[in-house]
Amino acid sequence: MELTEFIERSIGRWRSQRSGHHLAFSHFEEIRSTIDIVALEADDSAVIDICKLYNIDPTTALHPFRMSWEGESDWDEDDIQSGSCVLVPIPDPENPDRGKLLREQGYAETIAAVGNYHLSKDGTFTLLTEYDRAAAEERIWFATPNLRFRVSLIKTSSGQGVTTASFSSEIRDLSQSD
Amino acid sequence: MELTEFIERSIGRWRSQRSGHHLAFSHFEEIRSTIDIVALEADDSAVIDICKLYNIDPTTALHPFRMSWEGESDWDEDDIQSGSCVLVPIPDPENPDRGKLLREQGYAETIAAVGNYHLSKDGTFTLLTEYDRAAAEERIWFATPNLRFRVSLIKTSSGQGVTTASFSSEIRDLSQSD
Repeated sequence: MELTEFIERSIGRWRSQRSGHHLAFSHFEEIRSTIDIVALEADDSAVIDICKLYNIDPTTALHPFRMSWEGESDWDEDDIQSGSCVLVPIPDPENPDRGKLLREQGYAETIAAVGNYHLSKDGTFTLLTEYDRAAAEERIWFATPNLRFRVSLIKTSSGQGVTTASFSSEIRDLSQSD
Repeated sequence: MELTEFIERSIGRWRSQRSGHHLAFSHFEEIRSTIDIVALEADDSAVIDICKLYNIDPTTALHPFRMSWEGESDWDEDDIQSGSCVLVPIPDPENPDRGKLLREQGYAETIAAVGNYHLSKDGTFTLLTEYDRAAAEERIWFATPNLRFRVSLIKTSSGQGVTTASFSSEIRDLSQSD
């Protein structure tokens, strides 16, 4: 699978069921959310802005997209967690299965971030993003065209320890189809 | 990583935190359990018996082991789920990264089963086991020597649909070390 196909398969509305494991305390968290992934044009001003921020030529971007989410955690049912960010893949010209993913806003910290991705032969997309005081690793893969899984780890900045692991089952919301 | 190393790293006592996602109902299940993985000798009678059952030469077995578990689900706290099974890897002589895993007893159904495993270059162990009316897929990988993750899927027998997905964080219990 190529990155273009992976992103095209990701476009749409997804119903996500996510379990967080807080490893030190053996604590569970349950989150239900809706995720929308929408393709953006390469000349979208948000895409141009992020490329400028990182001093990267916007014409090297491949299939940028916007991801929005709205979710509810069992920790606080009144607390609707929602957000949105623009993601811009910049493939490595020498190895199309690897590259950088520019993001307007990260998961672990609400700042812009650059991650390194890799798409393996079996179709697993792996993303490693390093922040000042932590690192995030994500693995995303499709079980079927309408079901994808995501494992996210929050690591200490040294990369040695894992503080939180979460697992999401994401089912395509076909009620939104035309 | 080779299978021998993967199994050697798996030996020990693990504290497991598992989340089950029942996809059709968007239902969560939380299970805490203790898993013990113990190496067996190749001439252990349990190993010989399983090989006989499948008409396989026991001398082709690599690093057989016994896995035992005792867990508690949030669905019924009085229901302690425990069990034990012997697992016998039989590597493919032409491709050491693949092979069959004979098991005394499966997860999805309590009968003996043969799965097909594959150990990828990045150290992910994948096991596919087909039963009469269902199939199980497991992915296991190490984040650190003392932390491993497991994603288990229960699929329909056609392999097209996924009914249940679960995610386990398994932390080595160092209090058991010598």
